[in-house]
Amino acid sequence: MDDDWFRSPEDTSESYGKYISAIYRHMQILIAAELAPFRIGSGQYIFLMTIAGKERITQKALSEELLIDKTTTTKAIAKLEAEGYVRREPDPVDNRYNLLYLTEAGRAVVPKVQEALDQIRHKSRNGISDEEYVFMLGMLKKVLRNVNEQVRNGEQQS
Amino acid sequence: MDDDWFRSPEDTSESYGKYISAIYRHMQILIAAELAPFRIGSGQYIFLMTIAGKERITQKALSEELLIDKTTTTKAIAKLEAEGYVRREPDPVDNRYNLLYLTEAGRAVVPKVQEALDQIRHKSRNGISDEEYVFMLGMLKKVLRNVNEQVRNGEQQS
Repeated sequence: MDDDWFRSPEDTSESYGKYISAIYRHMQILIAAELAPFRIGSGQYIFLMTIAGKERITQKALSEELLIDKTTTTKAIAKLEAEGYVRREPDPVDNRYNLLYLTEAGRAVVPKVQEALDQIRHKSRNGISDEEYVFMLGMLKKVLRNVNEQVRNGEQQS
Repeated sequence: MDDDWFRSPEDTSESYGKYISAIYRHMQILIAAELAPFRIGSGQYIFLMTIAGKERITQKALSEELLIDKTTTTKAIAKLEAEGYVRREPDPVDNRYNLLYLTEAGRAVVPKVQEALDQIRHKSRNGISDEEYVFMLGMLKKVLRNVNEQVRNGEQQS
């Protein structure tokens, strides 16, 4: 990454997409480094944290919630299960489906993962005021709503 | 993705990271759908567009510029080469290195890819004024500068 990334003037025709992609890739690298001691990969932490917020979720619902395909979801859950952080149990209502839970170890690791994520975020907010941060969040939510609508429209057409 | 994503209040403790990740994943889905007719995957277009902006770039420099690991870069370039969009030539100065160029077909497809990306971006800017957009760009650049610094610091330590 050279200085071109930062030197370009801010104009309305410039793409925010390249910044989103670049921030995303940087965050994945930082998260991978921070979570390596817990044997949690940059592709798995998001599943762990979502299950922590919504226990008894099915793998299908998790996949839909995060908009991550089934294969990737299955692999990530298998990894988290192998590391002893997540367990699957048949749904008592319909045993064709499995519900996802955190294990004891999973519950114990969640605050540590949260702390690591908070630290990365804190450093990345350097030079950005609270007001600016809230404004940026609002913009990102608008963009997400718009792209989410585009994806839904695409799904209806196909 | 359910309404929780949009319902949460905007406060300074909320993580922008989950929005960046979600926007990134949505964009990858939209880009994959738009570029499928050209047989360009969501993981390849960024290499194509970067080579278009910097011909005679080496694979190593491309990898560093985009902060994407060597293996992923090699695979993406091999795919773009197989599709006839990119060619490699030994550097006349030092033939241990290959320089990357667009082929005729590559040059022809770039404006079409750009158009598809512009359309996705245009739709995703719905309800966001030019002023807001420029402000958001400025914030994203600040965040990127901060995470880029964190990654560099991490590299020095390791």
